[in-house]
Amino acid sequence: MRQLNLNKAFTLIEPGPVVLVTTHDGRKNNIMTISWTMVLDFTPVFAITTGEWNYSFAALRKKKECVIAIPTADMLDQVVGIGTCSGADTDKFAKFKLTPVHGKVVKAPLIKECLANIECKVIDFVRKHNIVVLEGLVAYIDSARKETRTVHAIGDGTFIVDGRKLDRRKMMVSKIPEGL
Amino acid sequence: MRQLNLNKAFTLIEPGPVVLVTTHDGRKNNIMTISWTMVLDFTPVFAITTGEWNYSFAALRKKKECVIAIPTADMLDQVVGIGTCSGADTDKFAKFKLTPVHGKVVKAPLIKECLANIECKVIDFVRKHNIVVLEGLVAYIDSARKETRTVHAIGDGTFIVDGRKLDRRKMMVSKIPEGL
Repeated sequence: MRQLNLNKAFTLIEPGPVVLVTTHDGRKNNIMTISWTMVLDFTPVFAITTGEWNYSFAALRKKKECVIAIPTADMLDQVVGIGTCSGADTDKFAKFKLTPVHGKVVKAPLIKECLANIECKVIDFVRKHNIVVLEGLVAYIDSARKETRTVHAIGDGTFIVDGRKLDRRKMMVSKIPEGL
Repeated sequence: MRQLNLNKAFTLIEPGPVVLVTTHDGRKNNIMTISWTMVLDFTPVFAITTGEWNYSFAALRKKKECVIAIPTADMLDQVVGIGTCSGADTDKFAKFKLTPVHGKVVKAPLIKECLANIECKVIDFVRKHNIVVLEGLVAYIDSARKETRTVHAIGDGTFIVDGRKLDRRKMMVSKIPEGL
C-alpha cells in the first residue's frame, strides 16, 4: 500500500461502493460493513449513517476515529460476512482472515487486503439523523492489486460489480478539482 | 412508468448512482446532477449534499420538495451536460431534450426518460454540513426500459457503468428488510 494524495481520497467514496469501517475501542479491533456513505467535501469530508444498532458505534463515539477501507469484488463474501455478525462476540479480523495494519495517525487499523484505506477522525455527530461526519487524514492505495472492481449494494441482498469506465473529462473540465 | 412500492425506493439510491434532482421554484423547472447522496433510512429517507453554490438550492429551500430521478448509462452526456451548466440561464429540460411529467404530490417534475423517479419532500436542512434530508413520498420505475445500468461518478471526470450482479440474498437473510 502506498500513500494516496489526500485530494484524491474522495474519489474512493464518491462512486458509492460498499465499504468496511474499522474501529479500535481501546481493547480490540472491530470492522463493520457500511453502504450508507456520502462525500461532503473534497478536503475530504465524508458522512456515514450508523448508530447504536451497530456495535462499532460505541467505539466511534468513544475514540472519535476510524478507518474506511475499500474492499473489492473478490472480497464480497467477507464483506457480507462482516455485515451479518457482531463484534460483540466475534473477532472479525480473525474470522474473515483479514490483516490489521497500523496507520500513521489513528489507532483503528487499516485492512491490508483492501484496495484502499482512509484514516479518519470523527468531526461531528448529527445525532438526529444518525450521521457521523468524518475527516480523511491519510489515504492509501494498493496499486499492485489485480482486482480493482468495487461492489455496490442494492440493499436487497444483491450487489453490482463495477463495469466499464467512461471518460467525460473534457466535458467536465470546469468541475474537476485541481490536481486530479 | 409504474409506481414502485415505497419500501423498495431506497434500493435506487443505496448503490450510489449519479442522480438528477429536479425542482420547481414556482415559475420554472430545473435539474441538477448530484453524486453526493446517501440513504438515511428504509422508510425511505435520503441525504444529499448541496448548498448555495447550486442554483437549484434556492428552489429546494423555498419549496421544500424535489424529485430524485435515476438516469442510465445511455444518458451520461445529458447527465454531465446538466451538471456543467446553470438553471440561472438555461432551460435544462429543453436543452437536454428531457420530458417533465407531473408527479402525484410535489410540483417538481418527474423526468420521463429516467429509469426511476422518487417524489421527495425536504424534512430538514443540516446547514453546517450542507446536507439536505429528504423523505421519499412516491416512487416510480420504468420497467419497460432496455438500458437499466446506472453510472457512478468517480469525481475526476470518469464514470463507472454497472457491471454484473452478484446474489448474496441467502447470506443476508437476517439483514434484508421485510417485503424486499
